[in-house]
Amino acid sequence: MKLATLKNNTPDGRLVLVSKDLARVADVSHLAPTLQYAIEHWPSLESALQDVDRALNNGSLDTALPFDPSAAAAPLPRTWQWLDGSCFLSHGELMQQAFQLEPIDDMERIPLVYQGAGDDFLGPCDDVVLPGDEYGIDFEGEFGVIVDEVPMGTTAEQALDHVRLITLLNDVSLRALGPREMKTGFGFVQAKPTTSFAAVAVTPDELGDAWRDGRIHLPLNVSWNGEWFGHPHAGAMNFGFHELIAHVAMNRRLSAGTVIGSGTVSNHDRSVGSACISERRAIEMIDFGEIRTGFMRFGDRVRISTTLPDGSELFGAIDQRVVAPPAT
Amino acid sequence: MKLATLKNNTPDGRLVLVSKDLARVADVSHLAPTLQYAIEHWPSLESALQDVDRALNNGSLDTALPFDPSAAAAPLPRTWQWLDGSCFLSHGELMQQAFQLEPIDDMERIPLVYQGAGDDFLGPCDDVVLPGDEYGIDFEGEFGVIVDEVPMGTTAEQALDHVRLITLLNDVSLRALGPREMKTGFGFVQAKPTTSFAAVAVTPDELGDAWRDGRIHLPLNVSWNGEWFGHPHAGAMNFGFHELIAHVAMNRRLSAGTVIGSGTVSNHDRSVGSACISERRAIEMIDFGEIRTGFMRFGDRVRISTTLPDGSELFGAIDQRVVAPPAT
Repeated sequence: MKLATLKNNTPDGRLVLVSKDLARVADVSHLAPTLQYAIEHWPSLESALQDVDRALNNGSLDTALPFDPSAAAAPLPRTWQWLDGSCFLSHGELMQQAFQLEPIDDMERIPLVYQGAGDDFLGPCDDVVLPGDEYGIDFEGEFGVIVDEVPMGTTAEQALDHVRLITLLNDVSLRALGPREMKTGFGFVQAKPTTSFAAVAVTPDELGDAWRDGRIHLPLNVSWNGEWFGHPHAGAMNFGFHELIAHVAMNRRLSAGTVIGSGTVSNHDRSVGSACISERRAIEMIDFGEIRTGFMRFGDRVRISTTLPDGSELFGAIDQRVVAPPAT
Repeated sequence: MKLATLKNNTPDGRLVLVSKDLARVADVSHLAPTLQYAIEHWPSLESALQDVDRALNNGSLDTALPFDPSAAAAPLPRTWQWLDGSCFLSHGELMQQAFQLEPIDDMERIPLVYQGAGDDFLGPCDDVVLPGDEYGIDFEGEFGVIVDEVPMGTTAEQALDHVRLITLLNDVSLRALGPREMKTGFGFVQAKPTTSFAAVAVTPDELGDAWRDGRIHLPLNVSWNGEWFGHPHAGAMNFGFHELIAHVAMNRRLSAGTVIGSGTVSNHDRSVGSACISERRAIEMIDFGEIRTGFMRFGDRVRISTTLPDGSELFGAIDQRVVAPPAT
């Protein structure tokens, strides 16, 4: 199933099912008003949602309406907990090599994760409003999972049973503010403003074989102002999502609806490009001894998407601009 | 006004008003079912809540019931965003001196803040369940504020208008896990399990003169297994809450109900003791060249409270044990 949330002037929006071709939506608010509600009540809702989904996809649902991604919020417009990993080792290695950063102990053994702000996610076509474009505005193309309630102490072996949905996101980052916040040891606050999501979150079965080993074996396609930027493959994730979940649930319960991100997708093969600007800059530094690419400026647009092996769009694209605050 | 949330088997509990002497409660769920709702609708609710509060405190409310702190959840049992500062410089200085940590640049000028998990707060008498007591279990006695919606770019001058409530909290920390997480630069995840709150959150006017300069000019009293541990004064906070709010709202909107903590209360005057074990250990290291105090063990109890100058309890006490998970 593909699920999305349409904006309706409430903080949590209105849940809909989206057809596999992303063309039509079915209202399911009589079953579950919001995605948060659906995740909290999944076992009792799943079969009724599947009935609507079948009718939507075989064309027998008279009430289906066209799907407009720009009317979509993030699948979860806000969540009680948002954790983001950095699980592609080639990304960290490039950053360390280019900028002579100290290596992080046990990076191959213990997942790197930061706690983010989940109170205010953006939809796929929403503008990213930032106070200035001098802070090194960057995108980070990532995959993520949305879990139901995960008890404290859940093991990696048990963790995948809690993955309800898979999602695609843009972890917007302000690179000029990151190094200082990292150096304090307290992690990112100002360096990680609000995160954006593709319209559609999908149940794992929508990925077929591409969902295995707790990883999403698909490329993540990024373009910046209409030009190809990269298509790294997410199968290279050093930890599976099951290991990420077990790591963060070691001594805490994860509420239903917790979102966990993979970190920017990155491969050792440089020909596939990157999913964030800072990695391209690191490669330039290594290859040319100088940085040739600037960060995003107001008005710039990033597009992030992924396709299944048959060429079909899975989540719909994140396609958004970064902009200044409206004049007051 | 003093507000509390009684447990009722729903995630957000049921809102009540508490009398100034903490003896009685008035149901206000007909006005606002939850504290989150009350904060989101404060301007339209405030005067109706004040009417009930007046009746509760002058004894004219027939429906008042006795207040049982053990029936209380955290005032906000969960919140969309939880940010915790480290705003008492003497704490950081002691830690740096004792354990030869690298000093943090600009610590006097830029507030240190980490993003925490706000999905699962504990009430004042709830047990803190942790997977083991070998992780250096520590308490941190702190004050915090609960804000209504804070727009991006709110200045320190504007910020105090958004402070709706003041609260007392125990930022439970696992010290064995902190240094590694700090060293990665990604900040705390495993080192900061769920946070506990005193039963009552109060409107700023309840503090009288003790609420000024965006600071809470009151001592924070801590005892551990019934023995005095410290009573440092929170007026020594290096940044006011207005500066903390402006720092975190620099490039993000804060949703109504965001909780912002002061960091463990700490004074340069060592005779007042400490509000966390790790600080006492740092002082022992400096004074004696060795650490003499261990961390909390399962079954240990911490009590955190504060009193107004007239001797009255302001928030009620946090009084809780750390325990192992129930046998399964």
